Amino acid sequence: MASLASFSIGVDLGGTNLRIAAIESSGARLETICTDTLVRRGRNQVIGEMCNAIGRLQKKFSSRYEFAGVGVGVPGIIDLETGTVCAAAHLPDWANYPVQTEIQQRLGTPVVLENDANCAALGEKWLGAGRDVNGLCMVTLGTGVGGAFIFNGEIWHGMVGMAGEIGHMTVTPDGPSCGCGNRGCLEQFASATAIRRMAGEVAAAGKALELAHAINANPEFSAKMIFQYALQGDAAAQQIFETVGWALGVVLSSLVDALNLPMYLIGGGVASAWQVFSPALFRELSRRSIVFRASDPAENSPGKKKTIVTQASLGGDAGLIGAARLPLLRSQTHAVSQRITA
Amino acid sequence: MASLASFSIGVDLGGTNLRIAAIESSGARLETICTDTLVRRGRNQVIGEMCNAIGRLQKKFSSRYEFAGVGVGVPGIIDLETGTVCAAAHLPDWANYPVQTEIQQRLGTPVVLENDANCAALGEKWLGAGRDVNGLCMVTLGTGVGGAFIFNGEIWHGMVGMAGEIGHMTVTPDGPSCGCGNRGCLEQFASATAIRRMAGEVAAAGKALELAHAINANPEFSAKMIFQYALQGDAAAQQIFETVGWALGVVLSSLVDALNLPMYLIGGGVASAWQVFSPALFRELSRRSIVFRASDPAENSPGKKKTIVTQASLGGDAGLIGAARLPLLRSQTHAVSQRITA
Repeated sequence: MASLASFSIGVDLGGTNLRIAAIESSGARLETICTDTLVRRGRNQVIGEMCNAIGRLQKKFSSRYEFAGVGVGVPGIIDLETGTVCAAAHLPDWANYPVQTEIQQRLGTPVVLENDANCAALGEKWLGAGRDVNGLCMVTLGTGVGGAFIFNGEIWHGMVGMAGEIGHMTVTPDGPSCGCGNRGCLEQFASATAIRRMAGEVAAAGKALELAHAINANPEFSAKMIFQYALQGDAAAQQIFETVGWALGVVLSSLVDALNLPMYLIGGGVASAWQVFSPALFRELSRRSIVFRASDPAENSPGKKKTIVTQASLGGDAGLIGAARLPLLRSQTHAVSQRITA
Repeated sequence: MASLASFSIGVDLGGTNLRIAAIESSGARLETICTDTLVRRGRNQVIGEMCNAIGRLQKKFSSRYEFAGVGVGVPGIIDLETGTVCAAAHLPDWANYPVQTEIQQRLGTPVVLENDANCAALGEKWLGAGRDVNGLCMVTLGTGVGGAFIFNGEIWHGMVGMAGEIGHMTVTPDGPSCGCGNRGCLEQFASATAIRRMAGEVAAAGKALELAHAINANPEFSAKMIFQYALQGDAAAQQIFETVGWALGVVLSSLVDALNLPMYLIGGGVASAWQVFSPALFRELSRRSIVFRASDPAENSPGKKKTIVTQASLGGDAGLIGAARLPLLRSQTHAVSQRITA
């Protein structure tokens, strides 16, 4: 008897709203539900809407495909053993809440919980820029800076699930203070928040009249607006993205020298400014990283594999796709272990 | 029939001489041969003496134990697939030489090659400070600064065997130039060479009269001598080790935040100055690393596992012991894969 192809359901629990997708094990998207459930309305409403949407998708596709389960990406620290959210800055009422058990009980299906940065890396590894590599480091530049590692095809969680805090690696030990207690963290140079801060600083210093004018005209100015100024040739805006690239280059050169992974991906909203910050990033990498230069076939080592540093390719869908990947990976592991046991 | 216990032979091919040990699979040392073969006399003589010593040990113990093979630690970059030394700064005539094949052919026994920093980490994991953890990062402070990672009990080689260049991670992006092309590398702050350079700088600046006097009296002054001055309360010498600890703290806080490993070990000759540099190291770690603080049970998270940062415990024997571990690990892997295949 030919077995059915399987499908799974991924949930991206964002800081603002909720997206749910059914994806076939080949990677083909079956359906996506973008709810207008505002996450700030609270845990119970969110869980209710989430379970309704999951139930609808499960029912709709279960006749054609075998259902592998649900993966949920959460923007916070997860206790993987208990399936509990330990802490989530943008979801205060979710702390210490047994999300996994709650959803499993309501739906009667297996649920896998994962940190959203890890989901994004897994999504890129499955269907995005990381398809052809077995290991990667992903840096997500958003309001903050997140990160994740995949070693030998699997998410690296670290001892207590806290691995991947790349945003708090030190760029310069005496740099700007960070909320984490450190100074000069990558997040203070390469997040959307840092870009706005740096723009405010140059404007306040009277060094960038045009940028200052735009900022004063719109106190809600965004990193995207500063990117537009940089694209139009504004020197002050370009200097800010030069700093973004420089800081990323300093931290990535340390990571390349330490880990010699085949791929380092830059994702998140700020990554769309790639063309204005990446020249400085590559300049620093080439200057600073002995391993990057040694693994560049253009340099002097034919036959050596190149270290790839590039943009993530799935944009805002990476986390949703990676969440859907979680139950598929788990069922593979189960199948292998059952085969070995048998 | 009860099977024999097994033993293996480890070789530590140092920059100056050669040590060879037979070790039982339980970790008990059977015998160590410290040859006076000067490695600078050249490859052929070294290989000849090495094979003689291995042969003697193999013959001596093969009646009582099953022989698992030979592991050789080499201070350089190894091509693991071909068993070739790609580059070794202190062994220039070994570059591109197929060491593994050569020794295997002469002895008729399996040989495993490995980088010496990786061997040291493996030794500490087997019989030293890392016995009880499944993952660790080891930083070796010697003439230069080396490093190695063990993830899930196994050496992490990276894409082309270049992982572990922790000595070239950036402490401060505008710091002293390094031979690798970068500025402000850890090696420029925490190696024996850096300690001598910093002592020379403070002496030349006329800031440390007593230290300057000692240095002028002995142009061959060592990092160890500066450590002695620090122990005796010399403020300039203490400031130098404060810088060593600060730089280690900056880099380790980035590694702890990125990887959340259970253990970070400091080894190598300079590690014996632990008491004078470790206070600054822990001060920086506590200040800078959000993951270090979150995984410190003393702080606010009962039940959480603590990140251990401590001295390596096997001293100069770590690499020799780790080299002997290599063939034992390989035969375990073979046994498991045979069981699965069967």
